[in-house]
Amino acid sequence: MSADFVEEKNSENFFAVRYEIERSLFCKQSRFQKVEVVETKGHGRMLLNDDLVMLTERDEFVYHDMIVHPALFTHPNPRRVLIIGGGDGGAAREVLRHSQVEKCDMVEIDEVVVEACREFLPVTAVGMKENSRFSLHIDDGVRYMRETPDFYDVIIVDSTDPIGPAAPLFNSEFYRNVYARLNDGGIVVSQAESPFYNSAMQRTMSQVLSELFPIVRYLNFTNLTYPGGYWSFSFASKKWHPIRDFDESRVVNSKLQFRYYNPEVHRGAFALPNFQLENIGAFLKD
Amino acid sequence: MSADFVEEKNSENFFAVRYEIERSLFCKQSRFQKVEVVETKGHGRMLLNDDLVMLTERDEFVYHDMIVHPALFTHPNPRRVLIIGGGDGGAAREVLRHSQVEKCDMVEIDEVVVEACREFLPVTAVGMKENSRFSLHIDDGVRYMRETPDFYDVIIVDSTDPIGPAAPLFNSEFYRNVYARLNDGGIVVSQAESPFYNSAMQRTMSQVLSELFPIVRYLNFTNLTYPGGYWSFSFASKKWHPIRDFDESRVVNSKLQFRYYNPEVHRGAFALPNFQLENIGAFLKD
Repeated sequence: MSADFVEEKNSENFFAVRYEIERSLFCKQSRFQKVEVVETKGHGRMLLNDDLVMLTERDEFVYHDMIVHPALFTHPNPRRVLIIGGGDGGAAREVLRHSQVEKCDMVEIDEVVVEACREFLPVTAVGMKENSRFSLHIDDGVRYMRETPDFYDVIIVDSTDPIGPAAPLFNSEFYRNVYARLNDGGIVVSQAESPFYNSAMQRTMSQVLSELFPIVRYLNFTNLTYPGGYWSFSFASKKWHPIRDFDESRVVNSKLQFRYYNPEVHRGAFALPNFQLENIGAFLKD
Repeated sequence: MSADFVEEKNSENFFAVRYEIERSLFCKQSRFQKVEVVETKGHGRMLLNDDLVMLTERDEFVYHDMIVHPALFTHPNPRRVLIIGGGDGGAAREVLRHSQVEKCDMVEIDEVVVEACREFLPVTAVGMKENSRFSLHIDDGVRYMRETPDFYDVIIVDSTDPIGPAAPLFNSEFYRNVYARLNDGGIVVSQAESPFYNSAMQRTMSQVLSELFPIVRYLNFTNLTYPGGYWSFSFASKKWHPIRDFDESRVVNSKLQFRYYNPEVHRGAFALPNFQLENIGAFLKD
């Protein structure tokens, strides 16, 4: 029986989601975490780190559209982009579709994630293929952020949950370094957990961002294979506002096709429900 | 072991969600379905019909805000409201908060659902308490819709999934009767399943509505304890448009407090992602 499904447990909230699988494709303990790819029966291939679902072939387009396009269509000229984490390649894939992007650096701490995805998740790993505009650094994103001499227009923090290797990606020191390496009109977007199940973490993170940036917002979307489905990214900006400075003709003129993102979805994603505003509203800055 | 959790299986998509429970509070086979209330460890009390989660105390506010308030704040003067289904009382609770509502009829087919909720789910059943503006009819909603001589400003179809007793609530004959019993400016909102897992059903339903109504839209929200989280209501209207005719000062002036709904959420909910528009866009009417 145990080989026939994978299960993500949410111990804090006393529930678990079990996916039936055809077979396991990859399973390796890295220095940081257990990295696994399975072929599910209902959601295509699935990547799990330490038994937590990171992505599935069936719904990854939602997450990757929303971590990339709201920021890259808010910034009027995103030429240099940095991705911290994102070892599956999905964020890089979407960033590189923007023709203004001249350089996309990606800093992933765990090369085993990259290895697993290159072998078994081509749908996202395609973003990491040989490309003169793309550089992959296997490195600690926290250290990279502290030491890099480079400046970026958009930084995307595509991290796992704030436990294990990703924990320092949620603190104040890291975001001071992010702020320092962002150009004048820079924007940082970060994976920000569930407004429902991780409200304390959302509050801490919005406070950290509000101490640094003049514009702090959150955007929500539905990632079907994350607990509860409801999920957020934080959006902090030095200058460009995601609603007031959003010019939807840039989306149309890009001629890019998306399965989830469009201008209405862009604006709608920044509309937060009252229970989330009660939690983080004091730290949002407009 | 079997008494320690409830499990909702999604056989078509090969996954299951398991909730740990403290104890079972109610379990009865009605003429229509197995009706169950359990005390979960993470989501408060939970109502299940035939082992499918209908609501939990922890997240029911999202569903009930979104099935009621977008319609009742779009219609400029909703005086008579009909709820088909909704036997937990949550939709009635939200409808009756609107002071313009003079009469709210509710037609629930299964009195065992009402009995279970009155005994064990006061948070929603409060909507069904003695009130001169409220009438509960234990009756078949399909027959009621065919035979009632009454007219309504808003009809809310708060049904279970389109299997078992609720199946006829998703067809064309039912909606012809809904149309016939709506006043000139009438609006009907219906539970419309997942844009991700139930796309065929969303397509059929939007087609049925588009043959009758001049305005057909869908709105999305995240119900954490439904499969995948991502969920829709259909919104069909004879006259009032949910965006163009939406006057957000009415929300402010109502002085009602909501945990999920607000004017930005109202507008944002009608922004559909491209994959859903590809499925139903041809039947949306603006």
